Amino acid sequence: MAILERRDVNAVAHLTMNAPERLNALSDEMLAALQSTLGEIKDDTSIRAVVLSGTGKAFCAGHDLKQMTAGRQAEDGGKAYFKDLFDRCATMMMTIQALPQPVIAQVHGIATAAGCQMVATCDMAVAAEGTKFGVNGVNIGLFCSTPMVALSRNIARKKAFEMLTTGKFIDADEAEKLGLINHVVPAQDLETSATQLAETVAAKLSAAVKIGKEAFYTQAMMSTQDAYAYAGNAMVENMLFRDTEEGISAFLEKRSPDWSQ
Amino acid sequence: MAILERRDVNAVAHLTMNAPERLNALSDEMLAALQSTLGEIKDDTSIRAVVLSGTGKAFCAGHDLKQMTAGRQAEDGGKAYFKDLFDRCATMMMTIQALPQPVIAQVHGIATAAGCQMVATCDMAVAAEGTKFGVNGVNIGLFCSTPMVALSRNIARKKAFEMLTTGKFIDADEAEKLGLINHVVPAQDLETSATQLAETVAAKLSAAVKIGKEAFYTQAMMSTQDAYAYAGNAMVENMLFRDTEEGISAFLEKRSPDWSQ
Amino acid sequence: MAILERRDVNAVAHLTMNAPERLNALSDEMLAALQSTLGEIKDDTSIRAVVLSGTGKAFCAGHDLKQMTAGRQAEDGGKAYFKDLFDRCATMMMTIQALPQPVIAQVHGIATAAGCQMVATCDMAVAAEGTKFGVNGVNIGLFCSTPMVALSRNIARKKAFEMLTTGKFIDADEAEKLGLINHVVPAQDLETSATQLAETVAAKLSAAVKIGKEAFYTQAMMSTQDAYAYAGNAMVENMLFRDTEEGISAFLEKRSPDWSQ
Repeated sequence: MAILERRDVNAVAHLTMNAPERLNALSDEMLAALQSTLGEIKDDTSIRAVVLSGTGKAFCAGHDLKQMTAGRQAEDGGKAYFKDLFDRCATMMMTIQALPQPVIAQVHGIATAAGCQMVATCDMAVAAEGTKFGVNGVNIGLFCSTPMVALSRNIARKKAFEMLTTGKFIDADEAEKLGLINHVVPAQDLETSATQLAETVAAKLSAAVKIGKEAFYTQAMMSTQDAYAYAGNAMVENMLFRDTEEGISAFLEKRSPDWSQ
Repeated sequence: MAILERRDVNAVAHLTMNAPERLNALSDEMLAALQSTLGEIKDDTSIRAVVLSGTGKAFCAGHDLKQMTAGRQAEDGGKAYFKDLFDRCATMMMTIQALPQPVIAQVHGIATAAGCQMVATCDMAVAAEGTKFGVNGVNIGLFCSTPMVALSRNIARKKAFEMLTTGKFIDADEAEKLGLINHVVPAQDLETSATQLAETVAAKLSAAVKIGKEAFYTQAMMSTQDAYAYAGNAMVENMLFRDTEEGISAFLEKRSPDWSQ
Repeated sequence: MAILERRDVNAVAHLTMNAPERLNALSDEMLAALQSTLGEIKDDTSIRAVVLSGTGKAFCAGHDLKQMTAGRQAEDGGKAYFKDLFDRCATMMMTIQALPQPVIAQVHGIATAAGCQMVATCDMAVAAEGTKFGVNGVNIGLFCSTPMVALSRNIARKKAFEMLTTGKFIDADEAEKLGLINHVVPAQDLETSATQLAETVAAKLSAAVKIGKEAFYTQAMMSTQDAYAYAGNAMVENMLFRDTEEGISAFLEKRSPDWSQ
């Protein structure tokens, strides 16, 4: 089996990280596979949502510490490698948010450090009861500064600070309460629940979802005035889609829309 | 009855959207009435708080889709009309936040799309048990990009994304938990509760509330340092009000303030 | 006893505000003592975390209104004094966040106005059951504009607006739910709980915590892209610490790290 499996069902691409012996660590190979596969999906108009999961005991346990340690053998002590590694990792995370299709994390076991960052980065997340989340690099002397970027844009400031500086784990119920994930479900319902969420989104008009997802992140850091100017233009563009005209007409006529997608 | 009723009681202006047959949709006429009435209240020093509600089954169900569809008859397919419409709507929303007086949404039934945006835009909101909130334009192929601007500044990122891309409704309890509204009350207590909140605020020194409300939104997107520089100046200005001197003196002397307002 | 006591135990500096007859108000003297002591701690490498508490009935009740009222005797009615006072207060608040060591508020009784601002400003906070939090300056005609800067960066928008414009208090349970504090504990466990949290953080690699705390606030208002560029560099720097190499090696070898700190 490949390090990253892709299985397409009903317009949803199911991506499964498959390096269970390394707790699906974001090794050079895993990052490359994710980047490459996301790049294919970006231009695949048959895909309208993505579910990201992992095999084995963990969703993802963060960076591959063995590989990183091996990188220290370079003449510069690993500096250039580490810079490149964190650049590639950030690029992959930003690719998830830049993808036209919504990405849903299907989380079980543990999601730690850059694994927790992936959960925070995905547009939505569903977790099995008992899943543990942590940004625990501080326990080994490596503060989770890059995971912090995603985490601190999802949950309240003091809760994020505590996770980052104590390295303590929170469980799925707490993660849902804080807004890090959308839903907690029994383990046996996890795949069904994530898939249903993905298929719900995939059933919408994909051109509208695409315009909306892009606007979601673009307007987030703008002033309210700038955000409205930007979002207003997005609404106009969306209104002029032939399928949106049909969607609104169908609603007014109390019938189902006949979309071209 | 007018499309927007105004009734002033005890320094509180009660605005009631009154197009129940259209679920108080934000038609051209409703937007114009809101803009005009807010403009009058802005300069009316007898008004120190505003309550916004709706008659009929819904607080507000968003834009008027029939009117928008009629707009498609123009030579440009409605493009100029839609742009103007979303501009007028955004201006009205920003007028609520720019108003010197706090505005409280009194919400019942449903608040969807631009109706949900109004709830998110008001400074505070009280809802009846069972009220449903949604940004469900995606269901008919029109992503709620402008409602998103207000919604995403009120609730956690993943919860907002889910509402926007699934179109699913949340109930009043969930809305309170997420921070979209302040309080949930039994339906029979809704008007009393919203009115009490408005009258509580109206009893404060209006010059101080005015300076504070303006500072609240102005400093929100600033760096902490810039925000303190700005807010520090607001505090100095506030300290030099004659009525604030009286308020502090009264507090130190354990008596009620004798304010000029 | 001094107006601000400092007691160092196990790499944790315990600072206790000690003006109980004035509810630990942030008088000129208290602000000066805090600024001076934080300045000493900043460069004290033996200190790896700080706990801030107060003696008497309150954690801190905000500014010293008697002193402020006395300031009105100046020729300018106090304008220059007030400006200087709010500048000094903001500088002290920003010094807490700029301190290399995490600062934990140990809160009991009441924390109001600038006292509530201190809780919001500290990196983490633990409170005794029954503690009351408020930004209630509006009740005496002085809107809590500077406390708002800290409060609005901790809790949801509508909840902050209500506290600021109604002056109403929330209790510790609500404060925890909103994210203003991290934990609520029985009063008799307060000191132990805050101390344990501080000692947990103090046991981490202080160089990593320092780099992480600085990054936490620096990246908060950046675009995601800029934040990743900044945080990536922080990760590289952190990876090159000798103690971090040892921490990761120890983890891979399933042993405790032998850190130089």
